[in-house]
Amino acid sequence: MTTHAFEITITRKEGLSDPEGTTAKKALHDLGYGGVGDVSFGRIIAIEVEAKNLATARSQVEEMCMRLLANPVIEAFAIEAVT
Amino acid sequence: MTTHAFEITITRKEGLSDPEGTTAKKALHDLGYGGVGDVSFGRIIAIEVEAKNLATARSQVEEMCMRLLANPVIEAFAIEAVT
Repeated sequence: MTTHAFEITITRKEGLSDPEGTTAKKALHDLGYGGVGDVSFGRIIAIEVEAKNLATARSQVEEMCMRLLANPVIEAFAIEAVT
Repeated sequence: MTTHAFEITITRKEGLSDPEGTTAKKALHDLGYGGVGDVSFGRIIAIEVEAKNLATARSQVEEMCMRLLANPVIEAFAIEAVT
């Protein structure tokens, strides 16, 4: 069993509104940053998984995203192995 | 004036506890993923800024992080230009 590290990036699916981003954009304009265009928020999760090999670990992480870490209805996720 | 795109990664400062990560780890263990080790959460912000050059845009983004987007007391941030 080896420990494998992954970085999961979770973002809103294309085309969905991002209320957090819209609010931040407005707040930045109010602070005087008029040049600010699109702002969008996402999450990043660093996770370590002990498994017999990288493929097994990765498929477990994918399952965890679907079941708990992400909301597959409105979010897309990308899993990257960190070496 | 050109539009410059950046990706900001915001994570907890080293050594600070991450309650969200601890909770996720426990929940994943409860779901049967016993091999899960450290879990830590961060945020990722994609932002577009119109400025006369990349350096100006980047220093504005740095200021925005300090003033609004991050909490410099407990968070560290990294700014990467996206081309």
